[in-house]
Amino acid sequence: MTASDPLPSWRDTPARRSIVAFVAAVTSPGSADFVAEPERIAVFDNDGTLWTEQPMYAQLAFALDRAAELGRPTSLHQLHEGGMPALADLLKLTHAGLSTDEFEAVCRRWLASARHPRFGRPYPAMVYQPMLELLGLLGRHGFSCWIFSGGGTDFMRTWAGDVYGVPPHRVIGSVGATEFRIGQNGPELIKSATIQVINDGPQKPASIHAHVGQRPILAAGNTDGDLAMLQWAAASPRRTLQLVVQHTDGEREYAYDRDPILGSGTQQIHAAAAANQWTVIDMAADWSAVHPPYP
Amino acid sequence: MTASDPLPSWRDTPARRSIVAFVAAVTSPGSADFVAEPERIAVFDNDGTLWTEQPMYAQLAFALDRAAELGRPTSLHQLHEGGMPALADLLKLTHAGLSTDEFEAVCRRWLASARHPRFGRPYPAMVYQPMLELLGLLGRHGFSCWIFSGGGTDFMRTWAGDVYGVPPHRVIGSVGATEFRIGQNGPELIKSATIQVINDGPQKPASIHAHVGQRPILAAGNTDGDLAMLQWAAASPRRTLQLVVQHTDGEREYAYDRDPILGSGTQQIHAAAAANQWTVIDMAADWSAVHPPYP
Repeated sequence: MTASDPLPSWRDTPARRSIVAFVAAVTSPGSADFVAEPERIAVFDNDGTLWTEQPMYAQLAFALDRAAELGRPTSLHQLHEGGMPALADLLKLTHAGLSTDEFEAVCRRWLASARHPRFGRPYPAMVYQPMLELLGLLGRHGFSCWIFSGGGTDFMRTWAGDVYGVPPHRVIGSVGATEFRIGQNGPELIKSATIQVINDGPQKPASIHAHVGQRPILAAGNTDGDLAMLQWAAASPRRTLQLVVQHTDGEREYAYDRDPILGSGTQQIHAAAAANQWTVIDMAADWSAVHPPYP
Repeated sequence: MTASDPLPSWRDTPARRSIVAFVAAVTSPGSADFVAEPERIAVFDNDGTLWTEQPMYAQLAFALDRAAELGRPTSLHQLHEGGMPALADLLKLTHAGLSTDEFEAVCRRWLASARHPRFGRPYPAMVYQPMLELLGLLGRHGFSCWIFSGGGTDFMRTWAGDVYGVPPHRVIGSVGATEFRIGQNGPELIKSATIQVINDGPQKPASIHAHVGQRPILAAGNTDGDLAMLQWAAASPRRTLQLVVQHTDGEREYAYDRDPILGSGTQQIHAAAAANQWTVIDMAADWSAVHPPYP
């Protein structure tokens, strides 16, 4: 590791070497695997792939805090007991009936004060430092990095630009309907409780097609909900790279093999990784740091 | 007009001058109206704004040709008589039940052979030369130009990149559901007949929010179906420009005030243009050429 190492938080293991080899192969002029810049599309899951998703998604923590602020506190226990209808009620209460501008302001206020329950840091500081370095490396090599998450697009866009350095149009998640109206302050979009897209599983390649319109050559995820996205990228006629983040580090982060909320397992994606020689990132072994320094 | 004129097909009229003044104001460092590059978002309707939509949308001509090719010819008369159910049947026959890759190949084959019935040229040569020059001028001044059309995203993307010089992710239209599956040739997305988004009227600002996530500062359209999009841009706190293309040139193109298929009028958008001093482009008066030279 030298001062100019672009991936200082990646140990010198096969995971790091597969990334470095891939980037060199697709970006070196004259390489048999060379890919022109406009075709260098990389797609990333968010929760559990780019930042910590335990003990619950940041967006769920936001919704619970917001419900309490609105005088209708809900507990995680009540949510588990109430199932999908309870979750839909919570989303309606906290994510609908206000304009997109108002929702953004509410999110930003929450982000400024909320702290992760175990690590005591703001949620944006729960990103994975090695993945930030990877996004930076790819950006400097002419890649367009996109995020395809099960989380809500509007929620993510309030912080993803600052944290990941990607423009809002490359941050895509689940989407609720919005209604255009001429309000007292002029035209506005009102967020409704109608869910249009749940951006998980086979929906991810469909969303990639709708939003990017090109096949990615790099895809990264951590649960079976990301499998279709990785398969879609792997089927590109170009050289591709698939990354599967494995949560093996109970000390510095969490050790688990099941998505905390949606409940997706990791068995299918690891079977596919083994069968297709995808790159599995063992957080404990492959990363010398997990989160960035704070404060 | 000199050799270096960036808008050679625009006569020296108020329309041209409003464009030149706007671009100078928002891109000159030190200008009170300066807008940073990442915020220079411009949105364009397609049919009737960037290319000819008479006597019928190119995409409808494609669908009728494709239906005939599939042994189930339909006439425009039958469509008018059958109304929406007949149109839905035609779309199902011609736009569904095949993979996105197959559909792209079908579109490209059609584009290579189809000719506009009156002008005898390929449809891509039916673009408006002055609007090509405007897209080029904006691109060179750090704008990101996006297309928000009522037409189908997949259809448009097969030619819009070459014709307009915009990447596929900036070409957004109406969208049908796609289904991800592992087919005989690997992963594919199958186009279904379920329409998810009809990208017209108040849906346009909703789509801009979903796909761009930023307010445009320039919007261009030609019918009442574009009104909400222009209102949305006009409500930006920044200096904005709204362009309304008016079809006044029966000789070089068509003279009309009603969308040929969706039937949107132009009364509301022209009332808004008058009330808000938006720029109306009178094709006959403001453009010295309508279509590019061919062949």
